[in-house]
Amino acid sequence: MASFNPTEHQHLRYNPLNGLWILVSPHRLLRPWAGQEEATEINDRPEFDPTNPLCPGVTRPNGQKNPQYTSTFVFTNDFPALLEDVPEPPQSNDPLFQTASAKGTCRVMCFHPKSNKTLPVMSVREIRDVVDEWVNQFNELSKKYLWVQIFENKGQSMGCSNPHPHCQIWCSSFFPNEPRVKDSHMREYYQKHGTALLDDYAKRELHQRERIVIENPDWLVVVPYWASWPFETMLISRNQNKRINDLTDSQKTSLAAVIKELTIKYDNLFKCSFPYSMGFHGAPTGNLTDANNSHWTFHAVYYPPLLRSASVRKFMVGYELLCQTQRDLTAEQAAKRLRELSGTKHYSEM
Amino acid sequence: MASFNPTEHQHLRYNPLNGLWILVSPHRLLRPWAGQEEATEINDRPEFDPTNPLCPGVTRPNGQKNPQYTSTFVFTNDFPALLEDVPEPPQSNDPLFQTASAKGTCRVMCFHPKSNKTLPVMSVREIRDVVDEWVNQFNELSKKYLWVQIFENKGQSMGCSNPHPHCQIWCSSFFPNEPRVKDSHMREYYQKHGTALLDDYAKRELHQRERIVIENPDWLVVVPYWASWPFETMLISRNQNKRINDLTDSQKTSLAAVIKELTIKYDNLFKCSFPYSMGFHGAPTGNLTDANNSHWTFHAVYYPPLLRSASVRKFMVGYELLCQTQRDLTAEQAAKRLRELSGTKHYSEM
Ligand SMILES: O=P(O)(O)O[C@H]1O[C@H](CO)[C@@H](O)[C@H](O)[C@H]1O
Ligand SMILES: O=P(O)(O)O[C@H]1O[C@H](CO)[C@@H](O)[C@H](O)[C@H]1O
Repeated sequence: MASFNPTEHQHLRYNPLNGLWILVSPHRLLRPWAGQEEATEINDRPEFDPTNPLCPGVTRPNGQKNPQYTSTFVFTNDFPALLEDVPEPPQSNDPLFQTASAKGTCRVMCFHPKSNKTLPVMSVREIRDVVDEWVNQFNELSKKYLWVQIFENKGQSMGCSNPHPHCQIWCSSFFPNEPRVKDSHMREYYQKHGTALLDDYAKRELHQRERIVIENPDWLVVVPYWASWPFETMLISRNQNKRINDLTDSQKTSLAAVIKELTIKYDNLFKCSFPYSMGFHGAPTGNLTDANNSHWTFHAVYYPPLLRSASVRKFMVGYELLCQTQRDLTAEQAAKRLRELSGTKHYSEM
Repeated sequence: MASFNPTEHQHLRYNPLNGLWILVSPHRLLRPWAGQEEATEINDRPEFDPTNPLCPGVTRPNGQKNPQYTSTFVFTNDFPALLEDVPEPPQSNDPLFQTASAKGTCRVMCFHPKSNKTLPVMSVREIRDVVDEWVNQFNELSKKYLWVQIFENKGQSMGCSNPHPHCQIWCSSFFPNEPRVKDSHMREYYQKHGTALLDDYAKRELHQRERIVIENPDWLVVVPYWASWPFETMLISRNQNKRINDLTDSQKTSLAAVIKELTIKYDNLFKCSFPYSMGFHGAPTGNLTDANNSHWTFHAVYYPPLLRSASVRKFMVGYELLCQTQRDLTAEQAAKRLRELSGTKHYSEM
């Protein structure tokens, strides 16, 4: 039999952040696709839409009028999944029917007054304003809440219900599953090795150089070895920062530059306004702010669904929901494609 | 402040099968939806499509010709994610870059010769043939493989790439994440309580009667207390069966009847061919066949994406991917709606 070649032969890879395995089946790239095709997302919106409740000066369904904002704009979600004041559920010791208390708040943050200004076509200066507002919000909300989740759902295929460029900030009194599980895996690693898992991981990736998409002195973007989504990336702080509000002035500017570069590459991959969900993960806050968080490294994850073209996505269904994630192309193949794309010139300007 | 009411006030619920929490925000049902709308899935296909590689007598892309099958028909997937013979990846002790071996096989199983015969419009007798073929396949494949996953992706929005009614069977040498985590939670419960988690759970649901969708002496269908998807259900064996091939003759017929009843209810909910991913979970097989599996109960899970109508689905994106699952309507509200729908008369015949 031939010797093992990861770009040809199926295998499992381990995600040390959650203890789960991914099935990699690179031979399956040849499969024809006769399933659902997505509408190609094109950024051809007008700058201003008087019916869009995220635009400057528009009156939202609840009667509030947006200011004529000129940079970012933040407001509390009109239909939040998390409210601040709700009655406490009763305590229960029943192992099969456990309820727990949830308090929180949800905010919406517009990136720019113009509806057609997505991150890849904003200037680094404008994205830096977004970073600054993330830090402001985080400073305020992290005092009260254990977890402050900044995330962006981009594109209709990622459930984004409003095309005006924006992100959301959902804060909670509880430690949500994903970061809680990550926290415990990183803590265990730290106890064993005395170093932060993602600090070590970034160093190893910089040495191996097989999965790097972007690097600069402050940041590293890789397709993680254990990526689930076809073109998933992780943006890791190289300065052992624990949270977004640890960033220095120059790290904030270089973060803005990396975000621009990565999102230009993404748009260039299939020549479309590339859909994804992304978000930042850092050490927990609220009453965990002063706990020992040496095991944390500030980072972002990008989960983009597209697989083969602007209209053919990966579906996380069936086997993925019932058993485990399966991917076709390898992390190395995805990284190579993203690395080789321009990160300075957007396809719409080529 | 008002006292806690689970159909009004946000709270968390615990899934004892995987140790994860779900955020329930029933007040959010009022949210307007301006996002992506799915094409309504209507079962208006012709009985036979000479270009569909799953139809009887059609030649598949690999040159093989399907027989003129008259009931079920099984073949090995032409583009399988899992192959039987592949070289072994090298061993690695590196905690950050772990690879493991994966062997397996993927089969496709057509339910019926006619492309417009989905499960809800097949007769119980025809569905019983499907159950029998599942058992045949399981008997054969469970000898060799540790895990035999029978699953159905139904509908384009669940990534189904061929409209002819069919399921898939993916078998693996490894224990996939979802059932492996479930196995360990059920085992722990058994060690503590001396009873199987899902046996106890079914009894409690039959007593509480708040989340029941269908019941008969052999089977219970509930919207689980910890449901993630809006109209998720779990079909549980009431006879302490561990695997699909433990079923008696009459349990196989009553399983066929329950599947018909549940899928009719699903189609009737939004008057469409209701999309979902479903699959069976039972005790592991291969060299775990004779291990102690007292903690297992044979069951199926249904994960349907639709939320409000035939065209508005729940997106598991952003907060769900980065933090944890959020749902709007409660499990009890979903169960009540499904319970009250006809399970005998399909909307197309009303
Ligand atoms: O095998 P199919 O139907 O072509 O493909 C579908 O089901 C598979 C198993 O759940 C998934 O991995 C694919 O993403 C999905 O599109
Ligand atoms: O808040 P939106 O954009 O209306 O809604 C979207 O993002 C939320 C947070 O990820 C999800 O819970 C919804 O399912 C999704 O449609």
